[in-house]
Amino acid sequence: MSTTQTTQIEIIKAATTKINDVDFGNLSFGSVFTDHLFECDFKNGEWQQPVIKPYAPFLLDPSTRVFHYGQAIFEGMKAYKNEADEIWLFRPDENFNRFNKSAVRMAMPEVPEELFMSGLRQLLQLDEAWIKKGKGNAMYIRPFMIANGTGVIANPSDDYKFMIILSPVTSYYAGDVKVLIAEHYSRAANGGIGAAKAAGNYGAQFYPTTLANKQGFQQVIWTDDATHTKLEEAGTMNVFFRINNTLLTAPVSERILDGVTRKTLIELAKSEGINVEVRSVLVDELVAAAKDGTLQEIFGAGTAAVVSPISGFSYKDEYFELPKLESTVANQLKEKLTNIQNKLEEDTFGWTVKI
Amino acid sequence: MSTTQTTQIEIIKAATTKINDVDFGNLSFGSVFTDHLFECDFKNGEWQQPVIKPYAPFLLDPSTRVFHYGQAIFEGMKAYKNEADEIWLFRPDENFNRFNKSAVRMAMPEVPEELFMSGLRQLLQLDEAWIKKGKGNAMYIRPFMIANGTGVIANPSDDYKFMIILSPVTSYYAGDVKVLIAEHYSRAANGGIGAAKAAGNYGAQFYPTTLANKQGFQQVIWTDDATHTKLEEAGTMNVFFRINNTLLTAPVSERILDGVTRKTLIELAKSEGINVEVRSVLVDELVAAAKDGTLQEIFGAGTAAVVSPISGFSYKDEYFELPKLESTVANQLKEKLTNIQNKLEEDTFGWTVKI
Ligand SMILES: Cc1ncc(COP(=O)(O)O)c(C=O)c1O
Ligand SMILES: Cc1ncc(COP(=O)(O)O)c(C=O)c1O
Repeated sequence: MSTTQTTQIEIIKAATTKINDVDFGNLSFGSVFTDHLFECDFKNGEWQQPVIKPYAPFLLDPSTRVFHYGQAIFEGMKAYKNEADEIWLFRPDENFNRFNKSAVRMAMPEVPEELFMSGLRQLLQLDEAWIKKGKGNAMYIRPFMIANGTGVIANPSDDYKFMIILSPVTSYYAGDVKVLIAEHYSRAANGGIGAAKAAGNYGAQFYPTTLANKQGFQQVIWTDDATHTKLEEAGTMNVFFRINNTLLTAPVSERILDGVTRKTLIELAKSEGINVEVRSVLVDELVAAAKDGTLQEIFGAGTAAVVSPISGFSYKDEYFELPKLESTVANQLKEKLTNIQNKLEEDTFGWTVKI
Repeated sequence: MSTTQTTQIEIIKAATTKINDVDFGNLSFGSVFTDHLFECDFKNGEWQQPVIKPYAPFLLDPSTRVFHYGQAIFEGMKAYKNEADEIWLFRPDENFNRFNKSAVRMAMPEVPEELFMSGLRQLLQLDEAWIKKGKGNAMYIRPFMIANGTGVIANPSDDYKFMIILSPVTSYYAGDVKVLIAEHYSRAANGGIGAAKAAGNYGAQFYPTTLANKQGFQQVIWTDDATHTKLEEAGTMNVFFRINNTLLTAPVSERILDGVTRKTLIELAKSEGINVEVRSVLVDELVAAAKDGTLQEIFGAGTAAVVSPISGFSYKDEYFELPKLESTVANQLKEKLTNIQNKLEEDTFGWTVKI
């Protein structure tokens, strides 16, 4: 965001809009896309001419590397429209930096900040009618990059495609979220790619998660792969535990995604006078707290669901139901955060960026 | 291969062949593809009409799940043509079974054996002119499956595309292969997807491998992620060590791909009277053997390179050069194996299957 130079983006406008076909009161997360997308190819060692053009399928050769070797990364961020029809982003520099961190780990080219930001800005401006006002409404932004070179040989691709697509979303009530604590399966390893938002991290979790679903749990809370004693994070959320009025969350590491919501909630909680400890949280500690009544809350934190309260957890075939509290830190922080994001409350942190 | 029923595959022939543009004496691995491919989509919970059609790019929506969540698996196998113009596969049931094992781990649908095998057979028959005779020549076969449902939500896709593509290859001399033993980065974790041929496992290795390349090493030998004390496998090869006239290789596990070449070489070596031990091989043990002169050989084993001798390894900044032996077990086993694969020697094991 520091540079003032603007990349000349070619803009090809859609002949018609799909907006009138969309029921904005009834959006299923990540399934509806706006009229345009941003695209920039990396070829011959260079980023090529960026373009905004109609959202549409594109052609790929069957030997395209992303199909075979999983060189693919993404980000997830949101834009909000306030009552004055201004469009605001929330900590976009965090997503930009994480995107390039993921790129490095996956041996993919880094995207220049100006390209990422001006693409994002101009795309949001062009499709701004798709961004709805009001708390809970947001534009989910999905920047992603795939290896689109060809050839079935397990080497980094020479060519890449960077795209940004937009999907209008509403806040959703995830229902009663019960979680299973991982005892066998694992999400990430030291020295692995767990800290990158790499496509392969997600597909790898689907099978253990479907096994948990069959047992009645909506999510898995991953533990460290080596000992399964430390609580790490959920599929697409970092996790917080409130024990004895202290909010606990695992430190980020090579195995854990450095979530923007997580770091924001830590700061928010501190500013609200809540005691926060960033340290390894042991499964045994959680079970003991559930047993002696000091466990008050567990909640997930991520861009998509913002804050997602968890009603109970299972470990070694024992199920622990959490207390139903009148007022929760989860709700307190969610309220505060969404007010800042939607510009309903002053942003004293400087997190929101107007486009 | 057990069923006699034949799936009715729709066949759309290419109008022209590209075969005359190909320099078969000068093939770069995995970069040239034949005239046709096999395709079958999975939709509404069912495999749809399979088709063989001209090899060509296909359309995908930008929100296609494989780009975002890495649900993608593949296999690598070879077909050989003997002097009598017959086409032979090598242990195709092993690849088929492993493909479905990978599918389960990635929450993807299993492919029926008859669909996999008849697709493969008919595709090879149609493009049989592309399979060249003579030792070293082979048709590399790449079955793969991608999640082609749409929507940026981290759940298993409903839709999938299964394809088989063919790439003529010649055996290649990999040159002097020096390897780096992993001390920090890791390929797989217990409870992870290391035993699956999932796309995400490969892209994850590219960055640490490029770091090794920069130091002058062509490959990384992965160690267990938890302790980095056990030697596991290389990027696309299992690894054998010959110490004191005993051939050693790690047992397969959740972290190691159950290689067809590996299991074949174990059997072949035993039948040749070579002492083989399948057990964890410690880095310390390898270093000690290199120092006391009992380390004789290291070689990789995989479908692409068959057997790939390693000339030296580095561990903790110390480089160990292997002895240059007149006759090696690597060569002995490679000769034996390629003779069986190319039908130049009797296959007493029943590994080769005529199509
Ligand atoms: C694995 C994982 N953990 C945590 C998060 C939460 O991160 P953020 O708050 O930046 O959305 C996400 C993603 O969105 C994720 O994919
Ligand atoms: C990770 C890995 N290990 C080992 C191998 C060797 O297996 P195979 O002998 O079946 O080709 C491969 C692949 O081909 C592989 O991808």
